[in-house]
Amino acid sequence: MQQPTRSDWIEEALSNLDTILLDHSHCERKAAGVAVNLMFRYPSFTKLVRMLTAIAQEELEHFELVNQWLERRQIPLAPLPAPPYGAQLNAQIRRQEPERLLDMLLVCGLIEARSHERLGLLAQHIRDPELAKFYRSLMASEARHYGAYWLLATTYCEEEAVNTRLQELATLESQILSTPYPQPRIHS
Amino acid sequence: MQQPTRSDWIEEALSNLDTILLDHSHCERKAAGVAVNLMFRYPSFTKLVRMLTAIAQEELEHFELVNQWLERRQIPLAPLPAPPYGAQLNAQIRRQEPERLLDMLLVCGLIEARSHERLGLLAQHIRDPELAKFYRSLMASEARHYGAYWLLATTYCEEEAVNTRLQELATLESQILSTPYPQPRIHS
Repeated sequence: MQQPTRSDWIEEALSNLDTILLDHSHCERKAAGVAVNLMFRYPSFTKLVRMLTAIAQEELEHFELVNQWLERRQIPLAPLPAPPYGAQLNAQIRRQEPERLLDMLLVCGLIEARSHERLGLLAQHIRDPELAKFYRSLMASEARHYGAYWLLATTYCEEEAVNTRLQELATLESQILSTPYPQPRIHS
Repeated sequence: MQQPTRSDWIEEALSNLDTILLDHSHCERKAAGVAVNLMFRYPSFTKLVRMLTAIAQEELEHFELVNQWLERRQIPLAPLPAPPYGAQLNAQIRRQEPERLLDMLLVCGLIEARSHERLGLLAQHIRDPELAKFYRSLMASEARHYGAYWLLATTYCEEEAVNTRLQELATLESQILSTPYPQPRIHS
């Protein structure tokens, strides 16, 4: 992340907490799906497989926990149009190996880093003490996931290439968020 | 399942146990991927989402455990050509809803049922007592998964339609396995 979240994001999120919770559920499911798909693409990369198995398990656990919050607040599960954030980041993934793997890992890492920041804002500002506590409880693993993706990138790619590309993608990630999506989302 | 496994499958499996273990690892990862993908397709089907989250978590746990066995036996993670079993079953999935959902659930259920039978054969015949114990420990959840897919089918579709289609697909599933795949696999 090059730029921190703009100041009005949290106000919009707090005013639309039910939508944010539903979007958060979708984010956790997508994060699990991405980790599983990465394992499919690189089935013989032992370290990647091991670390992504753990990440996918945690994302599914969070998915379940967020869904329990939805149930508690009587928010029905429903599709929700995604902001362009993920698609715009994925469009940056180069098609040749090993660039493809590097870009996929860094995009995943950047999304985790941004999620960590925004769930942190929710943890800090949500008035319901139990819900705030729930968001605090997610922080550590989001940070760990970011670290895991970065570690995998440096495992399979040259550190200099990792750093250069991370810089480029981090700049782009902040640019994408500088145009706010009109609906409240975790990555709006 | 309409027909039990042919008698020579277990001998071939025992003679190629390392390949079977590697294939089993792929099967668990694929099973987790299928459960996650089904949740993506039907994000507002609360019961489906809840049950498939639990299934995906268990499959990932099994994937991890099988991979520990691979490591212990120094079998490197590697791609392995899949037998036509899965593709031939998936080819039967009709494209219109609600038939599509019904067929996907029943195909998943049939694969779980066959896996349950074959992992049971491994549990019964493997000579290494610890590995046999490991296979026994997987049996209960494989049976539960089969039950979960069948329960979901009857939740979202008419019971008569479920029974008729299950009959058709079960017949086909046994037919597919009546032509043995030349390589040792869980579903050969």
